[in-house]
Amino acid sequence: MAEKKFVEAITSMEEDFAQWYTDVVKKAELIDYSSVKGCMIIKPAGYAIWERIQAELDRRFKETGVENVYMPMFIPESLLQKEKDHVEGFAPEVAWVTQGGLEELPEKLCVRPTSETLFCDYYANCVQSYRDLPKLSNQWCSVVRWEKETRPFLRSREFLWQEGHTAHATAEEAEERTVQMLNVYADFLENYLAIPVIKGRKTDKEKFAGAVATYTVEALMHDGKALQSGTSHNFGDGFARAFDIKFADKDNQLKYVHQTSWGMTTRVIGALIMVHGDNRGLVLTPKIAPTQVIIVPIMQKKEGVLEKAAQLKETLSNFRVKVDDSDKSPGWKFSEQEMRGIPLRIEIGPKDIEANQCVIVRRDTNEKITVSLDDVNTAVGNELEKMQREMLERAKEHREKHTYIATNYDEFKDIIANKPGFVKAMWCGDEACELKIKADTTATSRCMPWEQEELSGTCVCCGKPAKTMVYWGKAY
Amino acid sequence: MAEKKFVEAITSMEEDFAQWYTDVVKKAELIDYSSVKGCMIIKPAGYAIWERIQAELDRRFKETGVENVYMPMFIPESLLQKEKDHVEGFAPEVAWVTQGGLEELPEKLCVRPTSETLFCDYYANCVQSYRDLPKLSNQWCSVVRWEKETRPFLRSREFLWQEGHTAHATAEEAEERTVQMLNVYADFLENYLAIPVIKGRKTDKEKFAGAVATYTVEALMHDGKALQSGTSHNFGDGFARAFDIKFADKDNQLKYVHQTSWGMTTRVIGALIMVHGDNRGLVLTPKIAPTQVIIVPIMQKKEGVLEKAAQLKETLSNFRVKVDDSDKSPGWKFSEQEMRGIPLRIEIGPKDIEANQCVIVRRDTNEKITVSLDDVNTAVGNELEKMQREMLERAKEHREKHTYIATNYDEFKDIIANKPGFVKAMWCGDEACELKIKADTTATSRCMPWEQEELSGTCVCCGKPAKTMVYWGKAY
Repeated sequence: MAEKKFVEAITSMEEDFAQWYTDVVKKAELIDYSSVKGCMIIKPAGYAIWERIQAELDRRFKETGVENVYMPMFIPESLLQKEKDHVEGFAPEVAWVTQGGLEELPEKLCVRPTSETLFCDYYANCVQSYRDLPKLSNQWCSVVRWEKETRPFLRSREFLWQEGHTAHATAEEAEERTVQMLNVYADFLENYLAIPVIKGRKTDKEKFAGAVATYTVEALMHDGKALQSGTSHNFGDGFARAFDIKFADKDNQLKYVHQTSWGMTTRVIGALIMVHGDNRGLVLTPKIAPTQVIIVPIMQKKEGVLEKAAQLKETLSNFRVKVDDSDKSPGWKFSEQEMRGIPLRIEIGPKDIEANQCVIVRRDTNEKITVSLDDVNTAVGNELEKMQREMLERAKEHREKHTYIATNYDEFKDIIANKPGFVKAMWCGDEACELKIKADTTATSRCMPWEQEELSGTCVCCGKPAKTMVYWGKAY
Repeated sequence: MAEKKFVEAITSMEEDFAQWYTDVVKKAELIDYSSVKGCMIIKPAGYAIWERIQAELDRRFKETGVENVYMPMFIPESLLQKEKDHVEGFAPEVAWVTQGGLEELPEKLCVRPTSETLFCDYYANCVQSYRDLPKLSNQWCSVVRWEKETRPFLRSREFLWQEGHTAHATAEEAEERTVQMLNVYADFLENYLAIPVIKGRKTDKEKFAGAVATYTVEALMHDGKALQSGTSHNFGDGFARAFDIKFADKDNQLKYVHQTSWGMTTRVIGALIMVHGDNRGLVLTPKIAPTQVIIVPIMQKKEGVLEKAAQLKETLSNFRVKVDDSDKSPGWKFSEQEMRGIPLRIEIGPKDIEANQCVIVRRDTNEKITVSLDDVNTAVGNELEKMQREMLERAKEHREKHTYIATNYDEFKDIIANKPGFVKAMWCGDEACELKIKADTTATSRCMPWEQEELSGTCVCCGKPAKTMVYWGKAY
């Protein structure tokens, strides 16, 4: 049977999660591989999700006073080198343009891996007085990092993102903004993508090159691996000193600005897939889904069926609705639309029409309800809302079920080896323990959560007095 | 006086048009120069215009069935070289990445100057049957062309654009799409940006590298120079043959697809400035303006003035309205908001409030009308509509006044030398005449307009029998 073949085309996640992921990405037509090694083609179904992510994040950024700009995609080598930690972090993984037209360039240019240096250069020019502050900028663009191993959405040589960059008069304001934007990400992830996150601070080892503090939102995927889903950095005045970004304050003193940056990438589409997907394919939340409802006419050649389906679409004009009137069989359409993750399917055939009803099927639970065509608008609204809520609840449950506590190193190693998920454990603050844990288990510190707990008094690795609780885990 | 200083900061367009342009671009805060030679920073005021252009064009594209995608920004040298004319046209002006991370690349990659080759590679993979056609794709991205001389918006090494790429089963369908998209551009330019355009076909000399036919929309700037404002290309099956893009047709025969591409860039912001701007700065059309109405409170420290201004903003919530309540003087605010091109200014002070009225000032004509606060919503709507209409009328008048006819070469040379504008003249179709005209006068063929006229029987340059009427002009 054709339907069966279609579904069989994806590996089950229990059998091979990595292969399942790749299959979904391909079969849901999100991505295609390109002739450019390590770069991906984002196909219409994938890009439509990104457009909705963009629209929603952009709206939230603008509500906080952020303005969009566009910076050059190239960074001269000398500019990249101005901040020492930053260049050390990024230089090994950038792509270099050495030739322009037919000539060798006098100075090589890297393709931006991130744009702190360009924004600093810009702010150094346009910030003079406290009246010019704060500067709240963002840009939507692609960036390049020359990764050795790549995977669709999760790690590729070029990816799409937004990068926000701000400059402030005081350290307090910069810290406030860093936290504010992390909260924007967390709220977006939880309430829009139904991905619950742990908010916390990165250890010094894991923080952004050049930052004083990096905050992160960490999510747990279905296979128990962690995914860093957004970061927000406080730079203090480090970049300002390197780039000489000074302003005359109200007291007429020349002072350095305090800066932040924060970014979210197409990676979150990978998170969406790995948190909600199942063995029938992608599952999109009602809020993110480019199409929320797919109407599948049954026996569509019978008189009146397609007309009724079109009418139904009209009735549901508050939602994003499509009718699949292609000449495939209903069963094939079901499988295909399930693969694409469309939240609700509505079946309507001659018998339904006679009974003035239709059948609504939820993508996540496969639950079917029969509703009167008079109530269908309300029913669809209710189902979408319920689905959005329950998807978050399920993801939370899954994370709680896969979050463990370790109070000694044997326990820690046993959990990491046998129980995929987050491990909460105390840490002394010494990078040596982080390195040892990574060497022994491949797990890394995900974050020092804002919500701290006192699990024990000693570091899970070395046994010395503990300073902080850390979430650990294997990560993408 | 501070106000005077602000206005004096721009050169008058009669004195030095090029300097006027640069001054407006800087003073209206659209652009900043960057440390990257030939690349520009698009500042918030400039980017907000681009965002509105994007939203409107994107909506129009999608209405015609186009879907957005994202292709890699790099093109391997071997892929660029597959279509012979195309590579000859672009290779001399691309930037080459030769190093990734710390290693030399095995094959150098160019930063896309345009993406035909990538789309062809993609279509070759995903088009098998007539059922897969048409493919209607678009992407919003930046592209790089290594120009020697650059000017903000008009010519820069990196610029933003959209590039549409389509593949069709028949030559007729491809031609239809090429024309359709040129009409989308023309309609957008005329009805949204109030820029009237000549629609026509490029000569073989001026057409896109690899195209069978290039259609163009040509606009006339205030200084009488032409600006190519959007192009749409029909590729026939040339790229399909080079990239082997075949499909099984309904008759079970393997056939090559027929392709098109079409693009519009941040250049149109340059056109917007040079068609509508004046000696007080930028003038934005009501439809494109990110802010349509700026409310300037008079004697704002007096009790009730700022409250009334805020109320007025509420009343006008159908429009894009801001209140300038900064502590600058009203005169300074007037000049500054005029420089930014905001279509309407509303002045409201204690006397106005007492009389239940406000003063509306149009940016383009400086016309002032006093209206009752009870009617302000309707009045603003009317004024914006009138302004949008009249801006197009004025631009049309200007173009007609600066469009000349030449029937012999002396006349032609005289007009080009002394009367900036379009020259309509007959052409034999021989590239030698185009080259001679360019060498003698620096004018180029702008297009062979769809609306042809029979001005005389002979070529304006060589006197041989003429084939077609051509618009000629000096161009940006």
